[in-house]
Amino acid sequence: MKKRLGPQSRCYPMPIPLVLSGVGDEATMFAVAWTTVCGSDPPAIAMVVGRRHHTVALIRETRAFTVNFAPASLAREVDYCGLTSGRDHEKVARTGLTLAPSSVVTPPIIVECPYNLECRFVEEIELATGSLMMVGEIVEAHADEEVLTDDGKSADPGKLDPLVYITGTREYFRLGEHVADAYSAGRELMEERE
Amino acid sequence: MKKRLGPQSRCYPMPIPLVLSGVGDEATMFAVAWTTVCGSDPPAIAMVVGRRHHTVALIRETRAFTVNFAPASLAREVDYCGLTSGRDHEKVARTGLTLAPSSVVTPPIIVECPYNLECRFVEEIELATGSLMMVGEIVEAHADEEVLTDDGKSADPGKLDPLVYITGTREYFRLGEHVADAYSAGRELMEERE
Repeated sequence: MKKRLGPQSRCYPMPIPLVLSGVGDEATMFAVAWTTVCGSDPPAIAMVVGRRHHTVALIRETRAFTVNFAPASLAREVDYCGLTSGRDHEKVARTGLTLAPSSVVTPPIIVECPYNLECRFVEEIELATGSLMMVGEIVEAHADEEVLTDDGKSADPGKLDPLVYITGTREYFRLGEHVADAYSAGRELMEERE
Repeated sequence: MKKRLGPQSRCYPMPIPLVLSGVGDEATMFAVAWTTVCGSDPPAIAMVVGRRHHTVALIRETRAFTVNFAPASLAREVDYCGLTSGRDHEKVARTGLTLAPSSVVTPPIIVECPYNLECRFVEEIELATGSLMMVGEIVEAHADEEVLTDDGKSADPGKLDPLVYITGTREYFRLGEHVADAYSAGRELMEERE
Protein backbone atom coordinates (compact mmCIF):
# COMPACT_ATOMS: atom_id res chain seq x y z
CA MET A 1 0.00 0.00 0.00
CA LYS A 2 1.38 3.40 -1.01
CA LYS A 3 1.28 6.34 1.37
CA ARG A 4 1.32 9.97 0.18
CA LEU A 5 4.09 11.89 1.91
CA GLY A 6 3.77 15.33 0.34
CA PRO A 7 6.55 16.95 -1.72
CA GLN A 8 10.02 15.82 -0.54
CA SER A 9 13.57 16.37 -1.82
CA ARG A 10 14.74 12.79 -2.03
CA CYS A 11 17.01 10.79 -4.26
CA TYR A 12 18.29 7.31 -3.37
CA PRO A 13 21.23 7.06 -2.99
CA MET A 14 23.32 10.23 -3.22
CA PRO A 15 27.07 10.80 -3.42
CA ILE A 16 28.64 13.10 -0.84
CA PRO A 17 32.00 14.24 -2.25
CA LEU A 18 34.22 16.88 -0.71
CA VAL A 19 34.39 19.75 -3.19
CA LEU A 20 37.52 21.83 -2.71
CA SER A 21 38.67 25.15 -4.08
CA GLY A 22 41.20 27.85 -3.28
CA VAL A 23 44.97 27.70 -3.32
CA GLY A 24 47.59 27.39 -0.58
CA ASP A 25 46.42 28.26 2.92
CA GLU A 26 43.11 29.48 1.51
CA ALA A 27 42.07 26.05 0.22
CA THR A 28 38.87 24.79 1.82
CA MET A 29 36.16 22.28 1.07
CA PHE A 30 32.50 21.49 1.62
CA ALA A 31 30.37 18.37 1.30
CA VAL A 32 27.98 18.46 -1.68
CA ALA A 33 25.34 15.74 -1.88
CA TRP A 34 23.44 17.38 -4.73
CA THR A 35 25.97 16.36 -7.38
CA THR A 36 25.76 14.43 -10.64
CA VAL A 37 27.77 13.66 -13.71
CA CYS A 38 26.34 15.87 -16.48
CA GLY A 39 28.32 14.90 -19.55
CA SER A 40 30.80 12.45 -21.03
CA ASP A 41 32.11 14.34 -24.06
CA PRO A 42 33.63 16.31 -22.48
CA PRO A 43 33.28 14.68 -19.06
CA ALA A 44 31.43 17.12 -16.83
CA ILE A 45 29.93 17.37 -13.38
CA ALA A 46 27.14 19.54 -11.98
CA MET A 47 26.46 20.46 -8.37
CA VAL A 48 23.74 22.45 -6.67
CA VAL A 49 25.17 24.66 -3.96
CA GLY A 50 24.24 27.28 -1.40
CA ARG A 51 25.17 30.74 -2.64
CA ARG A 52 26.91 31.79 0.56
CA HIS A 53 29.42 28.95 0.84
CA HIS A 54 32.97 30.15 1.09
CA THR A 55 34.06 27.44 -1.35
CA VAL A 56 31.62 28.84 -3.93
CA ALA A 57 33.40 32.20 -3.77
CA LEU A 58 36.74 30.45 -4.18
CA ILE A 59 35.49 28.49 -7.21
CA ARG A 60 34.53 31.77 -8.87
CA GLU A 61 37.92 33.24 -8.03
CA THR A 62 40.12 30.34 -9.13
CA ARG A 63 37.75 29.17 -11.92
CA ALA A 64 38.43 25.62 -10.80
CA PHE A 65 37.67 23.01 -8.14
CA THR A 66 38.35 19.41 -7.26
CA VAL A 67 35.81 16.73 -6.37
CA ASN A 68 37.13 14.24 -3.85
CA PHE A 69 35.26 11.02 -3.06
CA ALA A 70 35.83 10.01 0.53
CA PRO A 71 35.86 6.44 1.80
CA ALA A 72 33.22 5.40 4.35
CA SER A 73 35.88 5.62 7.05
CA LEU A 74 35.92 9.43 6.67
CA ALA A 75 32.22 9.95 7.50
CA ARG A 76 33.10 12.12 10.50
CA GLU A 77 35.36 14.40 8.47
CA VAL A 78 32.86 14.71 5.61
CA ASP A 79 30.06 15.51 8.03
CA TYR A 80 32.20 18.17 9.70
CA CYS A 81 32.87 19.77 6.30
CA GLY A 82 29.11 19.90 5.70
CA LEU A 83 28.34 21.38 9.11
CA THR A 84 30.88 24.20 9.10
CA SER A 85 31.89 27.18 7.00
CA GLY A 86 35.37 27.68 5.61
CA ARG A 87 35.03 31.31 6.71
CA ASP A 88 35.06 30.32 10.38
CA HIS A 89 36.85 26.98 10.43
CA GLU A 90 40.23 25.90 9.17
CA LYS A 91 38.77 22.71 7.83
CA VAL A 92 41.91 21.24 6.35
CA ALA A 93 43.81 21.60 9.63
CA ARG A 94 40.88 20.45 11.77
CA THR A 95 40.20 17.30 9.74
CA GLY A 96 43.89 16.48 9.41
CA LEU A 97 43.37 15.76 5.73
CA THR A 98 46.37 16.13 3.42
CA LEU A 99 46.36 18.17 0.22
CA ALA A 100 48.45 17.37 -2.84
CA PRO A 101 48.93 19.44 -6.00
CA SER A 102 46.54 18.78 -8.87
CA SER A 103 47.97 18.08 -12.32
CA VAL A 104 45.95 20.58 -14.35
CA VAL A 105 44.03 23.01 -12.11
CA THR A 106 45.29 25.17 -9.25
CA PRO A 107 43.13 23.88 -6.33
CA PRO A 108 44.68 20.75 -4.77
CA ILE A 109 43.20 17.28 -4.34
CA ILE A 110 42.65 15.50 -1.02
CA VAL A 111 45.12 12.64 -0.59
CA GLU A 112 42.96 10.57 1.79
CA CYS A 113 40.12 10.48 -0.77
CA PRO A 114 40.98 7.56 -3.08
CA TYR A 115 39.27 9.04 -6.16
CA ASN A 116 39.60 12.67 -7.26
CA LEU A 117 38.39 14.77 -10.17
CA GLU A 118 40.03 18.00 -11.31
CA CYS A 119 37.46 20.40 -12.76
CA ARG A 120 37.58 23.61 -14.71
CA PHE A 121 34.61 25.79 -13.67
CA VAL A 122 32.50 26.31 -16.80
CA GLU A 123 29.26 28.04 -15.85
CA GLU A 124 26.75 28.72 -13.14
CA ILE A 125 23.02 28.48 -13.73
CA GLU A 126 20.13 29.99 -11.81
CA LEU A 127 17.51 27.25 -11.90
CA ALA A 128 13.88 28.29 -12.34
CA THR A 129 13.18 26.47 -9.07
CA GLY A 130 15.48 28.90 -7.27
CA SER A 131 18.78 27.09 -6.68
CA LEU A 132 22.27 27.76 -7.98
CA MET A 133 23.99 25.09 -10.07
CA MET A 134 27.69 25.11 -10.87
CA VAL A 135 29.05 23.06 -13.77
CA GLY A 136 32.62 21.92 -14.22
CA GLU A 137 34.46 20.19 -17.02
CA ILE A 138 36.40 17.23 -15.67
CA VAL A 139 39.94 17.72 -16.98
CA GLU A 140 41.74 15.01 -15.01
CA ALA A 141 40.99 12.10 -12.67
CA HIS A 142 43.19 10.40 -10.10
CA ALA A 143 42.79 7.18 -8.16
CA ASP A 144 44.88 5.46 -5.54
CA GLU A 145 46.61 2.51 -7.17
CA GLU A 146 45.24 0.28 -4.40
CA VAL A 147 41.62 0.89 -5.47
CA LEU A 148 42.06 0.31 -9.21
CA THR A 149 40.56 -2.53 -11.20
CA ASP A 150 42.99 -5.03 -12.75
CA ASP A 151 43.04 -3.12 -16.05
CA GLY A 152 44.06 0.04 -14.17
CA LYS A 153 41.38 2.17 -15.84
CA SER A 154 38.64 2.43 -13.22
CA ALA A 155 38.09 2.38 -9.50
CA ASP A 156 36.93 -0.96 -8.09
CA PRO A 157 33.82 -0.04 -6.07
CA GLY A 158 34.52 -2.57 -3.34
CA LYS A 159 38.05 -1.25 -2.82
CA LEU A 160 36.92 2.37 -3.14
CA ASP A 161 34.31 1.86 -0.38
CA PRO A 162 32.68 5.24 -1.15
CA LEU A 163 30.67 7.07 1.47
CA VAL A 164 26.98 7.12 0.53
CA TYR A 165 24.47 9.73 1.66
CA ILE A 166 20.81 8.98 2.38
CA THR A 167 18.34 11.87 2.28
CA GLY A 168 15.38 12.04 4.62
CA THR A 169 16.78 9.99 7.49
CA ARG A 170 20.09 11.85 7.05
CA GLU A 171 22.44 8.89 7.32
CA TYR A 172 25.73 7.79 5.85
CA PHE A 173 25.94 4.27 4.49
CA ARG A 174 28.56 2.25 2.67
CA LEU A 175 28.07 0.16 -0.44
CA GLY A 176 26.89 -3.41 -0.02
CA GLU A 177 27.10 -6.28 -2.44
CA HIS A 178 27.32 -6.39 -6.21
CA VAL A 179 23.86 -7.12 -7.60
CA ALA A 180 24.31 -7.32 -11.39
CA ASP A 181 26.31 -6.02 -14.33
CA ALA A 182 24.89 -3.01 -16.15
CA TYR A 183 24.42 -3.12 -19.93
CA SER A 184 24.11 -6.86 -19.43
CA ALA A 185 21.49 -7.96 -16.89
CA GLY A 186 18.65 -6.51 -18.97
CA ARG A 187 19.60 -8.33 -22.16
CA GLU A 188 17.73 -11.36 -20.92
CA LEU A 189 14.46 -9.41 -21.19
CA MET A 190 15.37 -8.22 -24.68
CA GLU A 191 16.01 -11.75 -25.85
CA GLU A 192 12.78 -13.12 -24.43
CA ARG A 193 11.09 -10.78 -26.85
CA GLU A 194 12.78 -12.05 -29.96
CA MET B 1 50.23 6.39 -4.66
CA LYS B 2 47.86 8.27 -6.96
CA LYS B 3 47.59 7.36 -10.63
CA ARG B 4 46.42 9.82 -13.31
CA LEU B 5 43.57 8.32 -15.30
CA GLY B 6 42.72 11.16 -17.70
CA PRO B 7 39.31 12.88 -17.76
CA GLN B 8 36.49 10.50 -16.72
CA SER B 9 32.78 10.92 -16.06
CA ARG B 10 32.56 9.40 -12.61
CA CYS B 11 30.55 10.01 -9.48
CA TYR B 12 30.39 7.52 -6.60
CA PRO B 13 27.71 6.32 -6.07
CA MET B 14 24.87 7.22 -8.43
CA PRO B 15 21.12 6.66 -8.21
CA ILE B 16 19.43 4.87 -11.13
CA PRO B 17 15.71 5.69 -10.95
CA LEU B 18 13.16 4.79 -13.60
CA VAL B 19 11.85 8.06 -15.01
CA LEU B 20 8.42 7.64 -16.54
CA SER B 21 6.23 9.85 -18.68
CA GLY B 22 3.26 9.55 -21.00
CA VAL B 23 -0.29 8.53 -20.23
CA GLY B 24 -2.26 5.31 -20.72
CA ASP B 25 -0.79 2.86 -23.23
CA GLU B 26 1.82 5.45 -24.24
CA ALA B 27 3.48 5.53 -20.81
CA THR B 28 7.11 4.46 -20.92
CA MET B 29 10.23 4.82 -18.82
CA PHE B 30 13.99 4.98 -18.98
CA ALA B 31 16.77 4.59 -16.43
CA VAL B 32 18.54 7.87 -15.59
CA ALA B 33 21.73 7.67 -13.54
CA TRP B 34 22.63 11.35 -14.03
CA THR B 35 20.07 12.61 -11.56
CA THR B 36 20.24 14.79 -8.45
CA VAL B 37 18.01 16.68 -6.08
CA CYS B 38 18.34 20.35 -7.06
CA GLY B 39 16.20 22.18 -4.53
CA SER B 40 14.24 21.88 -1.31
CA ASP B 41 11.99 24.96 -1.42
CA PRO B 42 10.30 23.93 -3.60
CA PRO B 43 11.62 20.36 -3.73
CA ALA B 44 13.12 19.84 -7.18
CA ILE B 45 15.04 17.27 -9.16
CA ALA B 46 17.37 17.61 -12.15
CA MET B 47 18.38 14.96 -14.66
CA VAL B 48 20.73 14.96 -17.61
CA VAL B 49 19.23 13.05 -20.52
CA GLY B 50 19.87 12.06 -24.10
CA ARG B 51 17.88 14.27 -26.47
CA ARG B 52 16.48 11.39 -28.51
CA HIS B 53 14.87 9.41 -25.74
CA HIS B 54 11.21 8.73 -26.32
CA THR B 55 10.47 9.53 -22.66
CA VAL B 56 12.01 13.00 -23.16
CA ALA B 57 9.47 13.72 -25.90
CA LEU B 58 6.67 12.52 -23.62
CA ILE B 59 7.88 14.75 -20.77
CA ARG B 60 7.66 17.77 -23.09
CA GLU B 61 4.20 16.71 -24.20
CA THR B 62 2.68 15.98 -20.80
CA ARG B 63 4.78 18.60 -18.92
CA ALA B 64 5.25 16.03 -16.16
CA PHE B 65 7.08 12.85 -15.17
CA THR B 66 7.51 10.49 -12.26
CA VAL B 67 10.77 9.32 -10.71
CA ASN B 68 10.57 5.77 -9.41
CA PHE B 69 13.32 4.30 -7.23
CA ALA B 70 13.63 0.58 -7.83
CA PRO B 71 14.73 -1.95 -5.22
CA ALA B 72 17.92 -3.92 -5.87
CA SER B 73 15.78 -6.92 -6.81
CA LEU B 74 14.69 -5.11 -10.00
CA ALA B 75 18.22 -4.67 -11.45
CA ARG B 76 17.31 -6.70 -14.53
CA GLU B 77 14.23 -4.59 -15.27
CA VAL B 78 16.06 -1.29 -14.70
CA ASP B 79 18.92 -2.39 -16.93
CA TYR B 80 16.46 -3.38 -19.66
CA CYS B 81 14.84 0.07 -19.45
CA GLY B 82 18.28 1.62 -19.93
CA LEU B 83 19.20 -0.60 -22.87
CA THR B 84 16.06 -0.15 -24.93
CA SER B 85 13.96 2.62 -26.45
CA GLY B 86 10.30 3.15 -25.73
CA ARG B 87 9.86 3.68 -29.46
CA ASP B 88 10.70 0.04 -30.21
CA HIS B 89 9.88 -1.77 -26.98
CA GLU B 90 6.71 -1.95 -24.93
CA LYS B 91 8.73 -1.64 -21.77
CA VAL B 92 5.86 -1.73 -19.30
CA ALA B 93 4.51 -4.98 -20.74
CA ARG B 94 7.95 -6.54 -21.14
CA THR B 95 9.10 -5.84 -17.59
CA GLY B 96 5.75 -6.82 -16.11
CA LEU B 97 5.81 -3.70 -13.94
CA THR B 98 2.48 -2.31 -12.77
CA LEU B 99 1.45 1.34 -13.16
CA ALA B 100 -0.85 3.18 -10.75
CA PRO B 101 -2.37 6.65 -11.10
CA SER B 102 -0.41 9.55 -9.67
CA SER B 103 -2.14 11.94 -7.28
CA VAL B 104 -1.20 15.24 -8.94
CA VAL B 105 0.37 14.72 -12.38
CA THR B 106 -0.92 12.71 -15.33
CA PRO B 107 1.95 10.18 -15.84
CA PRO B 108 1.54 7.19 -13.50
CA ILE B 109 3.93 5.81 -10.88
CA ILE B 110 5.47 2.33 -10.85
CA VAL B 111 3.93 0.19 -8.11
CA GLU B 112 6.92 -2.17 -7.70
CA CYS B 113 9.22 0.79 -6.95
CA PRO B 114 8.76 1.47 -3.22
CA TYR B 115 9.50 5.21 -3.45
CA ASN B 116 8.08 7.53 -6.10
CA LEU B 117 8.18 11.23 -6.89
CA GLU B 118 5.62 13.09 -8.96
CA CYS B 119 7.19 15.97 -10.86
CA ARG B 120 5.94 18.92 -12.81
CA PHE B 121 8.35 19.63 -15.69
CA VAL B 122 9.70 23.15 -15.11
CA GLU B 123 12.50 23.82 -17.59
CA GLU B 124 15.17 22.34 -19.80
CA ILE B 125 18.68 23.73 -19.94
CA GLU B 126 21.37 23.38 -22.60
CA LEU B 127 24.55 23.05 -20.57
CA ALA B 128 27.66 24.78 -21.88
CA THR B 129 29.33 21.37 -21.83
CA GLY B 130 26.81 20.14 -24.42
CA SER B 131 24.23 18.08 -22.53
CA LEU B 132 20.53 18.57 -21.96
CA MET B 133 19.25 18.92 -18.41
CA MET B 134 15.58 18.69 -17.46
CA VAL B 135 14.36 20.08 -14.15
CA GLY B 136 11.17 19.10 -12.35
CA GLU B 137 9.42 20.43 -9.30
CA ILE B 138 8.54 17.57 -6.96
CA VAL B 139 4.84 18.00 -6.24
CA GLU B 140 4.15 14.73 -4.42
CA ALA B 141 6.00 11.72 -3.01
CA HIS B 142 4.79 8.21 -2.27
CA ALA B 143 6.32 5.33 -0.36
CA ASP B 144 5.19 1.81 0.36
CA GLU B 145 4.05 1.64 3.96
CA GLU B 146 6.38 -1.33 4.49
CA VAL B 147 9.50 0.80 3.83
CA LEU B 148 8.62 3.75 6.07
CA THR B 149 10.45 4.77 9.20
CA ASP B 150 8.54 4.53 12.48
CA ASP B 151 7.45 8.18 12.26
CA GLY B 152 5.97 7.51 8.81
CA LYS B 153 7.70 10.50 7.22
CA SER B 154 10.67 9.00 5.39
CA ALA B 155 11.81 5.84 3.72
CA ASP B 156 14.01 3.59 5.84
CA PRO B 157 17.06 2.99 3.62
CA GLY B 158 17.51 -0.61 4.77
CA LYS B 159 13.88 -1.47 3.96
CA LEU B 160 13.96 0.53 0.73
CA ASP B 161 17.03 -1.42 -0.48
CA PRO B 162 17.58 1.01 -3.38
CA LEU B 163 19.44 -0.06 -6.48
CA VAL B 164 22.80 1.74 -6.73
CA TYR B 165 24.69 2.43 -9.94
CA ILE B 166 28.48 2.44 -10.20
CA THR B 167 30.06 4.29 -13.12
CA GLY B 168 33.24 3.07 -14.78
CA THR B 169 32.90 -0.62 -14.02
CA ARG B 170 29.20 -0.36 -14.92
CA GLU B 171 27.78 -2.36 -12.03
CA TYR B 172 24.69 -2.36 -9.87
CA PHE B 173 25.16 -2.61 -6.13
CA ARG B 174 22.91 -2.47 -3.11
CA LEU B 175 23.40 -0.42 0.02
CA GLY B 176 25.53 -1.89 2.78
CA GLU B 177 25.68 -0.95 6.41
CA HIS B 178 24.88 2.29 8.21
CA VAL B 179 28.13 4.14 8.90
CA ALA B 180 27.13 7.28 10.82
CA ASP B 181 24.40 9.87 11.29
CA ALA B 182 24.68 13.04 9.23
CA TYR B 183 24.53 16.47 10.90
CA SER B 184 25.88 14.63 13.93
CA ALA B 185 29.08 12.63 13.35
CA GLY B 186 31.06 15.77 12.53
CA ARG B 187 30.10 17.64 15.70
CA GLU B 188 32.86 15.83 17.50
CA LEU B 189 35.41 17.68 15.37
CA MET B 190 33.67 21.00 16.02
CA GLU B 191 33.77 20.48 19.76
CA GLU B 192 37.42 19.51 19.80
CA ARG B 193 38.04 23.02 18.55
CA GLU B 194 36.20 24.81 21.32
